[in-house]
Amino acid sequence: MTPPRDAAAHLPEALLRHAPPTAHTAPPLRAALLDVLHRPGRLARAALVYDAALAHGLAPVAAEQLACAVEYWHQASLVLDDLPCMDDGRERRGRPCVHRTHGESTTILTALALINRAYALSGLVFAEQDSATRATAQLLIEQTLGATGLVGGQARDLGYHAGMDAPRETGLIAWQKTGALLWLSLGLPALASRPSPGEWRALRRLALYWGLAYQAVDDLRDVLSTRADTGKSVQRDAALHRPNLALALGVTAAQRRVQRLLQQATRTMAGLAASHPRWDYLPAWHERVFAASSAALCAA
Amino acid sequence: MTPPRDAAAHLPEALLRHAPPTAHTAPPLRAALLDVLHRPGRLARAALVYDAALAHGLAPVAAEQLACAVEYWHQASLVLDDLPCMDDGRERRGRPCVHRTHGESTTILTALALINRAYALSGLVFAEQDSATRATAQLLIEQTLGATGLVGGQARDLGYHAGMDAPRETGLIAWQKTGALLWLSLGLPALASRPSPGEWRALRRLALYWGLAYQAVDDLRDVLSTRADTGKSVQRDAALHRPNLALALGVTAAQRRVQRLLQQATRTMAGLAASHPRWDYLPAWHERVFAASSAALCAA
Repeated sequence: MTPPRDAAAHLPEALLRHAPPTAHTAPPLRAALLDVLHRPGRLARAALVYDAALAHGLAPVAAEQLACAVEYWHQASLVLDDLPCMDDGRERRGRPCVHRTHGESTTILTALALINRAYALSGLVFAEQDSATRATAQLLIEQTLGATGLVGGQARDLGYHAGMDAPRETGLIAWQKTGALLWLSLGLPALASRPSPGEWRALRRLALYWGLAYQAVDDLRDVLSTRADTGKSVQRDAALHRPNLALALGVTAAQRRVQRLLQQATRTMAGLAASHPRWDYLPAWHERVFAASSAALCAA
Repeated sequence: MTPPRDAAAHLPEALLRHAPPTAHTAPPLRAALLDVLHRPGRLARAALVYDAALAHGLAPVAAEQLACAVEYWHQASLVLDDLPCMDDGRERRGRPCVHRTHGESTTILTALALINRAYALSGLVFAEQDSATRATAQLLIEQTLGATGLVGGQARDLGYHAGMDAPRETGLIAWQKTGALLWLSLGLPALASRPSPGEWRALRRLALYWGLAYQAVDDLRDVLSTRADTGKSVQRDAALHRPNLALALGVTAAQRRVQRLLQQATRTMAGLAASHPRWDYLPAWHERVFAASSAALCAA
């Protein structure tokens, strides 16, 4: 069931093919959309959704549509988070942030076009599923993207200040921002094969471990790395008093936390694999995403 | 089938009841959401959707959910359009614009929470419809809200400049911004009773006539009115070189245009009423929305 390693190689092209219509779009909006779509990044979430969708029995076209939907939601959140009134980012994926090239208003409209397109694509994929599955998908999407997910996490992030319980608040923000999108990436394609309640709970735990580990690695990278390594602005968290687990706990404790989370993730994946072979795609993604970064950042 | 005149009286309360969750939401986001929801405005679109949904056979709860969904999409577009990088609005519905009270970042997150909630609600309403109806609804939502609708219209609006064919570009912007949301308000509830292709085309024409007339009345109001009349910033279009039909054509020609559009709308509604009595709700809405404003603004 495990798809080949290069299954996601066509995703950058698919992101362009399923994109919001640009032919009759106002030229500045079209230019900004194409700018975003031509810097796809590592596509970690899209690759996870794609592999998962195939493993759970969706057709390749539907798998691609669902992967693009999640990636558009993710890209929309990134370009909005970079705005001057949010995190005031300078660079993203090695190039100037979208608002620095295309202006703030066009950036907001670009994000909205991507969000609307993502909803249309996921709606198409779930149109053929039964109504209970559609309702669960709907609920999952709002929980992970709305006021209790990505949007709520960014609000918490912006409200973060020095007097708070830093480890607790940092963890909550990591869950609502990073964890929620991974929970969407894990949960949405899995719905296609009607997971048992136990599998569903395990998947949500995995999203939590992955989300917290992913964010902690990012936080460690911000504290330890230089711009050339990451292609985006670094060591900004300390300067801007942003939530950062490596700052809240110290580098060594944060590294230990990452190692523990990755062990918990590994145990959760083993439990799922024991229940059914269709969960085989999980360790491959875990390995791809965490092997290099965690080895570099978390050496004891 | 025509609902009573006060059918929409409970909509302000429904907007609060169906709102994005606020109990565990970050306090600044919760405050901004409640600020938006407590200034519902005239709810012209929500009332249209509610009346239409009942006329097309949806249950009152579903009618309310669909009305709230369209109103949340509309409110999200208003608070975003008011941002400094967009139209830089000062007042909306008689009070300071949301970003002036709650900040720009929280305003953007508020809009996103409303958009995600709107999608969840419309998804719930259409969950029980057949898959062809769901697909048409999905398509209509993206066409009217995405890069070819509201988002594209706002991009065109921001790109508007003096060298353009003002009447043509102004009309195109009015269609993509105002017309698109009316097309959504007309089309989405009508799908519940499977309109014939002829009815569907007539409905889209009606959205065009209404949308252009609605925007032209708004443009005339901007040129002719004072702040006390409208509760929002006025006479800004000339100052900011914004597309405005009354500026592009002159006041008298714009008034004649409104009258012609309203006559075309009336003929279209008569054609629909001749096909089936369920379209009876249309003239009531037309009367409520256009009677006062057009009489005041368009006296020959």
